[in-house]
Formats: sequence, C-alpha cells, structure tokens
Amino acid sequence: MPGLNVRSVLVTGSNRGIGLELVKQLLGKSNPPQWVFATCRDPEGARGQELQNLVSKHPNLVMVKLDAVNPASIEEAARRVEEQLDSLGLNLVINNAGIFSDVSLAMVDSEEMLDAYKTNVVGPLLVGQAFLPLLKKAAQGSSQKGLSCSKAAIVNISSVLGSIERVPEILTKPAISYRCSKAAVNMLTRCQALTYAEDGILCAAVHPGWVQTDMGTQEVGADLPVDKSVQGILAVLPALSEKHSGSFWSWEGKTIPW
Amino acid sequence: MPGLNVRSVLVTGSNRGIGLELVKQLLGKSNPPQWVFATCRDPEGARGQELQNLVSKHPNLVMVKLDAVNPASIEEAARRVEEQLDSLGLNLVINNAGIFSDVSLAMVDSEEMLDAYKTNVVGPLLVGQAFLPLLKKAAQGSSQKGLSCSKAAIVNISSVLGSIERVPEILTKPAISYRCSKAAVNMLTRCQALTYAEDGILCAAVHPGWVQTDMGTQEVGADLPVDKSVQGILAVLPALSEKHSGSFWSWEGKTIPW
Ligand SMILES: NC(=O)c1ccc[n+]([C@@H]2O[C@H](COP(=O)([O-])OP(=O)(O)OC[C@H]3O[C@@H](n4cnc5c(N)ncnc54)[C@H](OP(=O)(O)O)[C@@H]3O)[C@@H](O)[C@H]2O)c1
Ligand SMILES: NC(=O)c1ccc[n+]([C@@H]2O[C@H](COP(=O)([O-])OP(=O)(O)OC[C@H]3O[C@@H](n4cnc5c(N)ncnc54)[C@H](OP(=O)(O)O)[C@@H]3O)[C@@H](O)[C@H]2O)c1
Repeated sequence: MPGLNVRSVLVTGSNRGIGLELVKQLLGKSNPPQWVFATCRDPEGARGQELQNLVSKHPNLVMVKLDAVNPASIEEAARRVEEQLDSLGLNLVINNAGIFSDVSLAMVDSEEMLDAYKTNVVGPLLVGQAFLPLLKKAAQGSSQKGLSCSKAAIVNISSVLGSIERVPEILTKPAISYRCSKAAVNMLTRCQALTYAEDGILCAAVHPGWVQTDMGTQEVGADLPVDKSVQGILAVLPALSEKHSGSFWSWEGKTIPW
Repeated sequence: MPGLNVRSVLVTGSNRGIGLELVKQLLGKSNPPQWVFATCRDPEGARGQELQNLVSKHPNLVMVKLDAVNPASIEEAARRVEEQLDSLGLNLVINNAGIFSDVSLAMVDSEEMLDAYKTNVVGPLLVGQAFLPLLKKAAQGSSQKGLSCSKAAIVNISSVLGSIERVPEILTKPAISYRCSKAAVNMLTRCQALTYAEDGILCAAVHPGWVQTDMGTQEVGADLPVDKSVQGILAVLPALSEKHSGSFWSWEGKTIPW
C-alpha cells in the first residue's frame, strides 16, 4: 500500500471485525500514520481487549471512546482527538461501526428500522460533522492539489445490500432495516461529497465484500477473510481522486450502482 | 383516466396537498371507486375540514384516522377499513403522507434525521404491513393476470430529491434528512416489490413533480399546480405492469434513476 499516506486516521467500531483489521493493517504499514485513533464503545472493557493489547505495542495508537448512537460521545471523541493532534488536522475518518439484522419485511418493526438508521446513518452523519473542523485543517495544511484520502477524506463503510439497483440479485437475505439504512448512508455520502468538496474533503462509500466477521458470517455466510477485505479497501482508497468523490466502491475497486 | 379501475383505494396524508387532490380526482372519475379511504391525523379537527366537506357530498368517501408515526394508529386504521370493506379486498394503497425540512448538512441533527425517517420510511413500511392482508385479498379476488395498480398495489410517493444519482443536479436545496429518507423509501419500495410479487401486489415509487402545496412551495419554489401533478400520477399508475414493479417514476411517466 504505497499510496495511502496519512498522518492521522480515525476508525469507528474498531474493537473487532473490519474496524480492528483496518487498525492493524494501518499500524503495520511501512510508513505508518503518526496517529491512529481507534474508537469503540467501551475502550476499557473486555470488548476492547484486542485494541488494548495493540496499544501497548504501538505508541502511535490511541483508543478513544465513541458510541455512534450517542451525539455527546461523538463530540467528546472529537475534542479528545483534537487535543492529541495538537494543532494538526485529521486526514481520514472511516465510518465503519455498523449493525446488521436479518429481518424480513414481514417481521421488521419500527424499533429495528430506527436502530439500524441511528447506527448506520445518523452515526456517520454526526461523526462527519464533529470531525469536520479537523478534516478541514488537514486539507488546508496540505500542499496536495485536488482531493484524496491521504489529504482529507470521509469513508463510509456501506454494503452492496444498500444498492437499490442490485436488490433483485441478492434478495436471499431480506435485511430490510439494514438495506434501507445503507441506501440512506449512500445518499448521505453523496451529499457529504458535494457539500465538503469546497473544504477539500473527499467522501466515498465502500462495500468491504462478504467478510468473515461476526456480522459477515451472519449476513451472508461470508467467504472473504477479513485481511483480504482490508487489503483491498486500503488499496482502493489511495486510488480515489476528485472525480471519484461521492461514489460507491467495492473492496476490489469496482464501482457499485446506487 | 380510463385505465385506473379500482374498487377501493386508500390515501395517507389526504387532508391537504397532493393527498387531498388525489382523493378529489379519484372521486371525480367517471367510474369512481366504490370506496375511497381518505386517511389523516385528525379527521375531526380543523385540519380535516376540506375532507369533511367532501364526505357530505360523497357517500363512497370514508375518513379514517391514521398517524404515520404511530404504529397502533396504523393498525387501528387497517381494522376500520377491513370492517368497511366487509369481505372485499383493498386494491390500492398510496403512501403519500410525508414531511420535509430544508436542513443543511451543517445544521441537521439526530432528531431531524429520525423524524423524517419515521414519517417518510417507517410509516410507509408499517402501512404496507398492516394493509397487506387486504391487498392480498384484492389480488386473490381478481381475475386479472399479472400485476397492476387496479388489481393490488402499493404506491409510495417519493421525491426526485431521493435520487442518489441526481444529487449533483439539484443540490440547491440540501434537505439532508429528507433526501436520506426518500432514498431509503425507494429501497423499501424495491424490497416490497420483490417480496410482495408472489402475493400479486405491484409496488412502485412516484415523484409527483415540484408541486404547489405547502411543502412544494417550501421545498423548491414549486411551479406545478397540484391538479396537473395528480392528473399525471393517475395517468401513470394504470400504465404500470409487472415489469415496472419496484421502479421509480415521475408524474410524467419517466423512470428516475436511483
Ligand atoms: N462483514 C461483512 O460481510 C460486511 C458486508 C458489507 C458491509 N459491512 C459493513 O462493514 C462494517 C463493519 O462490519 P463488521 O463485519 O466488521 O461487523 P462486526 O464484526 O459486527 O463489527 C461491528 C463493529 O461496529 C461496532 N459498533 C456497532 N454499533 C456501534 C455503536 N453504536 N458505536 C460504536 N461502535 C459500534 C461494534 O462494536 P461492539 O463490539 O461494541 O458491538 C464492532 O466494533 C459495518 O458498517 C458493516 O455494515 C460488513
Ligand atoms: N410538493 C412537492 O413539490 C413534492 C415533491 C416531491 C415529493 N413530494 C411528496 O409528496 C407527498 C405529499 O406532499 P405534499 O406536497 O402534499 O405535502 P404537504 O402539503 O405538506 O402535505 C403533507 C401531508 O402529509 C400529512 N402528514 C405529515 N405527517 C403525517 C403523519 N405523521 N401522519 C399522517 N399524515 C401526515 C400532512 O398532514 P397534516 O395536515 O396533519 O400535517 C399532510 O396531509 C410527500 O410524501 C412529499 O414528500 C412532494
């Protein structure tokens, strides 16, 4: 991954699954970031154990508490990151935290719909708002022309299950609440891209593949090892430029229709 | 409108705007439905005045209380309609009730996001669930082959502002919470179409144009008179068949990209 050259990156939901692997591979780069902010709901608890082990080995890794459904916790996380960065900006925010429920149209209820929306859409929106000043600072402080993930970017981890076009191809899992939330986060990504372009910030949605995580196993009987997925994502991100902002990519670097 | 030949139709949010005009034009047809169920939040209050006036002239018009953000009220409405229909089914449900807020990415908050989602997405979902048995009954009782709006259908009134593809063309109004909700209701429509096809029910999303209603005036300085929009919609619906289920149409009968 020679391309992705970030000084600072933040990943939400990074205590397990794709988020944890993103943190590991970022730390393992030949040119690792100066700061990796690994956020999760419970950094001190048992669920944060793997991250805690990593922290003891990597002084550039900072664990930050961030609950995607709690606006105050998101704002507090932004303050914490700002302090740590001192006067530097933040190059890359990866909105990875997400929940999945394989509920059918017959069984889904209001609560399921709202839970998925809160975590998978409102969370990424609020994270984007809270870290915007730091992303702007990174863009302003950069000498690079155009937009790039190394300069300043928001990457929303979406899902091909959020592709409205592709519903007929993959209706095996109904996952109504999840699909609606991922279609909405794709819309959010496109609005973010157009709104934040003037601030020098690239925004993109990424489908990580069917990945063997807790979620992926439940989601579709996933077959893609998490390291492969994350290698793919980290190869796609540096290839994105101005003309790709506001679009939807697979971990293999193919665009996905809305 | 010779094509749309429904015995029974239900419209949500029908006390003003597009919903009210849909009711008026359905009642004014040369072959009016046997039953028009005009639902609104407050049938007896001042906001229901126009519908109350219509009821006194049209014995086939039934006002039913339905608040799209209240699951119990939706279920109660379904019971009320079932009673009235006696053993008949319901041909057509038009999910028209909706809210709009022209809020920017900078200003939108969790509450705005959830409010729009509850009314514009969860409402149509729950209405679809609650009236499904009556729609099935209409499909089963019909001798028509294939799918049609005259036989059994759910029409979700969406908006071109929910087209992810088209965001760059119409970014003048940010309307983040609204856009995300309408993208999600498009996803819902497609899932409904695929799920309910086996029950003989057609599902489609329709953009009514920029219509001169309370909302439209605020939304985009709309220029389309409400009667023209509804004439358009009522001409598009009978033209939809099996192959159009799960797609997104403008009031002029053009497909809109996701
Ligand atoms: N795996 C796949 O096949 C697949 C396919 C398409 C898309 N995706 C997307 O990829 C992303 C990561 O998925 P994954 O497979 O790694 O899932 P996972 O193994 O279930 O992990 C989900 C992560 O999100 C966190 N999270 C959930 N709710 C949160 C909240 N309110 N605040 C903060 N963190 C929260 C979890 O933290 P806790 O440990 O505290 O619960 C966990 O770290 C998700 O956005 C998912 O939709 C995955
Ligand atoms: N006008 C446009 O240019 C335009 C463009 C694109 C799409 N649309 C869509 O067209 C549909 C109708 O819009 P409109 O222009 O007629 O809007 P409108 O004039 O603002 O009327 C909205 C209607 O929805 C009802 N409603 C709102 N929340 C409700 C709830 N929780 N339960 C039940 N009813 C509720 C309102 O009832 P109350 O009187 O009780 O508030 C009212 O009857 C909406 O789905 C809208 O998104 C409109």
